[in-house]
Amino acid sequence: MRENIAGRANVADTPELERYYADLAKLEAGALWTVANNIEPWQPKPSSVPMLWRYADLKPYVQRASALVTPEDAGRRVVMLVNPGRREISAACGLLYTGIQIMEPGECASSHRHMASALRFIMEGSGAYTVVDGERIELGARDFVLTPNGTWHEHGVDAAGTQCIWQDGLDIPLVNALDTNLFQVHKDLRQTVSKPADSAHGTYGGGFLLPTDARKNWTHPYSPLLKYPFDATYEALRRADKAGVNSPFDGVLLEYVNPLTGGPVMPTIGAAMQMLRPGEATKAHRHTGSIVYQCAKGSGHSMIDGVRYDWTERDIFVVPSWSVHSHANGSDRDDACLFQFNDLPAIRALGLYAEQGVPVATG
Amino acid sequence: MRENIAGRANVADTPELERYYADLAKLEAGALWTVANNIEPWQPKPSSVPMLWRYADLKPYVQRASALVTPEDAGRRVVMLVNPGRREISAACGLLYTGIQIMEPGECASSHRHMASALRFIMEGSGAYTVVDGERIELGARDFVLTPNGTWHEHGVDAAGTQCIWQDGLDIPLVNALDTNLFQVHKDLRQTVSKPADSAHGTYGGGFLLPTDARKNWTHPYSPLLKYPFDATYEALRRADKAGVNSPFDGVLLEYVNPLTGGPVMPTIGAAMQMLRPGEATKAHRHTGSIVYQCAKGSGHSMIDGVRYDWTERDIFVVPSWSVHSHANGSDRDDACLFQFNDLPAIRALGLYAEQGVPVATG
Amino acid sequence: MRENIAGRANVADTPELERYYADLAKLEAGALWTVANNIEPWQPKPSSVPMLWRYADLKPYVQRASALVTPEDAGRRVVMLVNPGRREISAACGLLYTGIQIMEPGECASSHRHMASALRFIMEGSGAYTVVDGERIELGARDFVLTPNGTWHEHGVDAAGTQCIWQDGLDIPLVNALDTNLFQVHKDLRQTVSKPADSAHGTYGGGFLLPTDARKNWTHPYSPLLKYPFDATYEALRRADKAGVNSPFDGVLLEYVNPLTGGPVMPTIGAAMQMLRPGEATKAHRHTGSIVYQCAKGSGHSMIDGVRYDWTERDIFVVPSWSVHSHANGSDRDDACLFQFNDLPAIRALGLYAEQGVPVATG
Amino acid sequence: MRENIAGRANVADTPELERYYADLAKLEAGALWTVANNIEPWQPKPSSVPMLWRYADLKPYVQRASALVTPEDAGRRVVMLVNPGRREISAACGLLYTGIQIMEPGECASSHRHMASALRFIMEGSGAYTVVDGERIELGARDFVLTPNGTWHEHGVDAAGTQCIWQDGLDIPLVNALDTNLFQVHKDLRQTVSKPADSAHGTYGGGFLLPTDARKNWTHPYSPLLKYPFDATYEALRRADKAGVNSPFDGVLLEYVNPLTGGPVMPTIGAAMQMLRPGEATKAHRHTGSIVYQCAKGSGHSMIDGVRYDWTERDIFVVPSWSVHSHANGSDRDDACLFQFNDLPAIRALGLYAEQGVPVATG
Repeated sequence: MRENIAGRANVADTPELERYYADLAKLEAGALWTVANNIEPWQPKPSSVPMLWRYADLKPYVQRASALVTPEDAGRRVVMLVNPGRREISAACGLLYTGIQIMEPGECASSHRHMASALRFIMEGSGAYTVVDGERIELGARDFVLTPNGTWHEHGVDAAGTQCIWQDGLDIPLVNALDTNLFQVHKDLRQTVSKPADSAHGTYGGGFLLPTDARKNWTHPYSPLLKYPFDATYEALRRADKAGVNSPFDGVLLEYVNPLTGGPVMPTIGAAMQMLRPGEATKAHRHTGSIVYQCAKGSGHSMIDGVRYDWTERDIFVVPSWSVHSHANGSDRDDACLFQFNDLPAIRALGLYAEQGVPVATG
Repeated sequence: MRENIAGRANVADTPELERYYADLAKLEAGALWTVANNIEPWQPKPSSVPMLWRYADLKPYVQRASALVTPEDAGRRVVMLVNPGRREISAACGLLYTGIQIMEPGECASSHRHMASALRFIMEGSGAYTVVDGERIELGARDFVLTPNGTWHEHGVDAAGTQCIWQDGLDIPLVNALDTNLFQVHKDLRQTVSKPADSAHGTYGGGFLLPTDARKNWTHPYSPLLKYPFDATYEALRRADKAGVNSPFDGVLLEYVNPLTGGPVMPTIGAAMQMLRPGEATKAHRHTGSIVYQCAKGSGHSMIDGVRYDWTERDIFVVPSWSVHSHANGSDRDDACLFQFNDLPAIRALGLYAEQGVPVATG
Repeated sequence: MRENIAGRANVADTPELERYYADLAKLEAGALWTVANNIEPWQPKPSSVPMLWRYADLKPYVQRASALVTPEDAGRRVVMLVNPGRREISAACGLLYTGIQIMEPGECASSHRHMASALRFIMEGSGAYTVVDGERIELGARDFVLTPNGTWHEHGVDAAGTQCIWQDGLDIPLVNALDTNLFQVHKDLRQTVSKPADSAHGTYGGGFLLPTDARKNWTHPYSPLLKYPFDATYEALRRADKAGVNSPFDGVLLEYVNPLTGGPVMPTIGAAMQMLRPGEATKAHRHTGSIVYQCAKGSGHSMIDGVRYDWTERDIFVVPSWSVHSHANGSDRDDACLFQFNDLPAIRALGLYAEQGVPVATG
Repeated sequence: MRENIAGRANVADTPELERYYADLAKLEAGALWTVANNIEPWQPKPSSVPMLWRYADLKPYVQRASALVTPEDAGRRVVMLVNPGRREISAACGLLYTGIQIMEPGECASSHRHMASALRFIMEGSGAYTVVDGERIELGARDFVLTPNGTWHEHGVDAAGTQCIWQDGLDIPLVNALDTNLFQVHKDLRQTVSKPADSAHGTYGGGFLLPTDARKNWTHPYSPLLKYPFDATYEALRRADKAGVNSPFDGVLLEYVNPLTGGPVMPTIGAAMQMLRPGEATKAHRHTGSIVYQCAKGSGHSMIDGVRYDWTERDIFVVPSWSVHSHANGSDRDDACLFQFNDLPAIRALGLYAEQGVPVATG
């Protein structure tokens, strides 16, 4: 791709150059100027496209998976959401994976661990639990839970519970892009529960209280707090609203944080819950980083690169890096909440964050 | 002080040496060996002594201050607690100051700021408030609130409130020991309230949720969260107990932290609340650092350097650096809570923390 | 890919499932168990392969580029080294790009900046210079220089110099994988030199001395020190050797660091120089992360996944993530030096580092 | 001390109040308003006074100590410099101690360690060495060396050396003010040298190069680099000068730093070397923090709170906290260098730093 702009590659093919390129190819080499404008674009050119998956469309297929395969055969019984531009790596957006998992009462997946980091956001059902490194964590609808990389983890639903459906979020495509994936199945397929239930919540969930030396004793790069319940989250959003916390681009947005650092819950994946007040419509902006949203409450729409995407509870949609986006609550009476997970901790840690407010609508 | 031990100073006075010392004194100099053993003791030799002040003794005098002086004349109407070994610097223990302040309904102290950092722990009354850098903070009994160094602050009690009494804690002796105190009275004697009431709590008090860029936007070394309510604190202690948080020396102890860092609330003063379970008696230990305690709930006793100090609600007592101490709840049915503030953040930041479990009782 | 192992996906295709998969595809969804074993491999499966490019082979082609294209038309006159497994993204290994650039005396590339971070390692010639954010930096053979992301930079060779050839290293594939590239050409095509020559070296290169508030005043995530001269580097390696610095896997290896943090020079790319002592042969290990090496001094060979790669000065070779590798100096009398750059700072910041010593040779 | 200013204590004594104060005293309490204006001054009121000790005056007495006491009896044979305002704590300025130590060829002090942190700046002689935690460090004139808190250390002079004199700097008064001193004599009185000579210099002294995981492997809060030689320091100052490093208040000032962090060498004591260019006279400023200077090269004078102090090589002088000070090189041809150590790392860590430029001369 030639560009007739000073500072950009602009070399016409000639027979001599073509022979030169062929010679270089034999040496497993090439001429930078033949690809420079492509690999150094003026701005990000994600192959991901904006997408919205309606829960009403997906749910029947998720439920059918229960009938079609056992958790034992499938490993995990998940319908994954695949961006049309990222099929070869099974990503929902950028280097993020997402899927919808279903479990019936009494089922339990085998214990494993991997270099990928994972999170779950509970969509429906009661009795779901996760065991992470020996701690059993009870989960209700709209609760958010981590299974950070390297932790032994397994998911299940109590026999006394109901059919449970949740969203999984992972950084598998990122971990693969960096050639770093490792995977292990637990030798006993089931780990021993060695800690009091929800003990991380009791230890680190005090809000603004921590045990002595908590920071010193915790040596992992991820949050020791694993469960972030929805009730406390929603209450915090309402308090933050009253306190004047508001972004023109995101309304009242609070990030889930590691209580030991005030930073993101995991090094590769961040998560947040945002509240759009009744009638609120945000301004548009764009920034580097990929986002996967799920509507957690209410309904509304988002404009992504000029196209309108209407969402209601449990719908999932994605905003690719550098896409112009804004959100609008569809109700004048009730607030609406969007859960999100994203790769912003990675983007920021690597010094790759850039942001741009957009004065006029684009598209 | 001579010591007949290899590696310690052991020089006998002679007429020649005495003349030498006199000559050195004329040059504003001296011989190290004449003081070395004193200034480098084998272990800390605090001039502070263990002390307990009964609230029942102090309260009448605190109340009498109301009749004797106006807040305008006194600046702040405070009965300070003075360690017998630290009278010259008005310290309660080590380099920590504490006092008991009283305010009547409708009274308000003038606004000021200083290099010293301060905290308050509310003992009695309703309607107390603090204004810190434009934010008004409502305070109830056993709430803990910061007024970090450099912040404009003023205290008052609503006209509709009751007589209020609280404990002040400051690092004035430390700030003076380092020759760094600065003091300013607000030019208008009263600052303008420019933020929603309790907005820091709404913004930073979400527990495990923070606004985007909260860490980046906050440039002060102290916590942006200023109020730590007792109810949430007590609830956190009970959850921590169930989660197995327990120190053999302190029972269930949680430190108040800066939610942006997981670290102490201020660089010079830390604070914590500890719960002794029914019947709990801790092991003894000693460590560097000075502690000022107030019994926040229940009753019991502490052993400090072999002496028993019985405490009940609102009693204040101190443990000097390196003193052997343990605590015991006096009840088999109810828990007991001790609030404390200390200089441990300073001690730790300067690399001066040392600790020692004590296998057998000393005294 | 089915695997008959508990905890792995092992679902046979059936007509019913095939219809199910087709239905999912219409919803831009899929069944995780059809790809799970592929996207979560037991260990990293890089598409990059070990490679060595001989300078003797490449140099004629690099020099011919000088005759074939102008710097103006080419943007930068570079022969890039392309891993056979990474042709679609022009990477040399993993998500790292490398190329060999040539400039003739008096030539100068136009000034630009981009989200990608870059480094250069000088191979031959005299008179090369780089201008980075207003500072002109003189470069000699085997000097290492940064042009971090966001900095305006331009390269040139003084009219009085000689033909110069250097290795470029960039994170372009990583920055593209994260959809974060941005590119700008300087409006004047040339920036103004506004600082004393080599002023960063004078300011931050004192070794163990820094100006007051240097850490506070520098707000970028990359090193303010831009040039790392070879002479001082080599001297440091020899001192480190005498001090006993030695890794069984890498001999005497020192990382170039940001003097303000002791950490890597840039958030995405690390660099190091290692010295193999006369006769030294290291043990084999493997770890996550991709490495691009250039032999800076001497000769020897590396074993990479069981294959021997012989190298001499200016040869470039790569070790893909998780490849087993060891190095051997070919001389019993002289030391050998390997320059490297890698993605380890990114790998570590994201919590994706894993390492394994290899007790016996693999291949 | 009453002050008739709103916001300050202004309470007249009355018989009733005097009885009240007497009653409070019996309870080991007091009325804050009786001391408030004293303990919260408008600005720092150090009891330390500016002082200069001429080396020409001190040296004969230092040398006489050699004749008067043995190192064995004295522990360390040191003439300490005592500020007239700090005699009770043997401080030279603020909470800093300094002294001049002498050792004859073949002498060696016994090994000990303590909570206080120490440094030495060599004044005269050859053959001096320090052993710190098993590493022997050779020292020449104007070299700067650390013996951080907790390290076993001993000082000596080789039998083949000459009489050596150096300045000791310690934070003993600070460590005592915080009631944290601990002291131990080595059980063998002499430690085993277990590392190559100057190995810290070889390992960490590469300037902008560090061994892999150096930051991770070093867990102490002080610099692993212990010796900072003068030659490299002076060279760095000259390079910094050319690079434009210059403070209006301090000329070319470079701080000795921990190469793993870019921060101060020890948590409680910082050190720096500053160069006044020929003819340079700095502007005056004042700030919190105490400084002990030694003239390392040349001659000149400093104005401290309006009084002139002339200094030449090896003279030692102090600037108390908040004292207005400026420096002038006495030569128009040669540069002058001032070594300093200070408590600024402590002041800054505790959030107590304040600074003020002084537009006109004060005094």
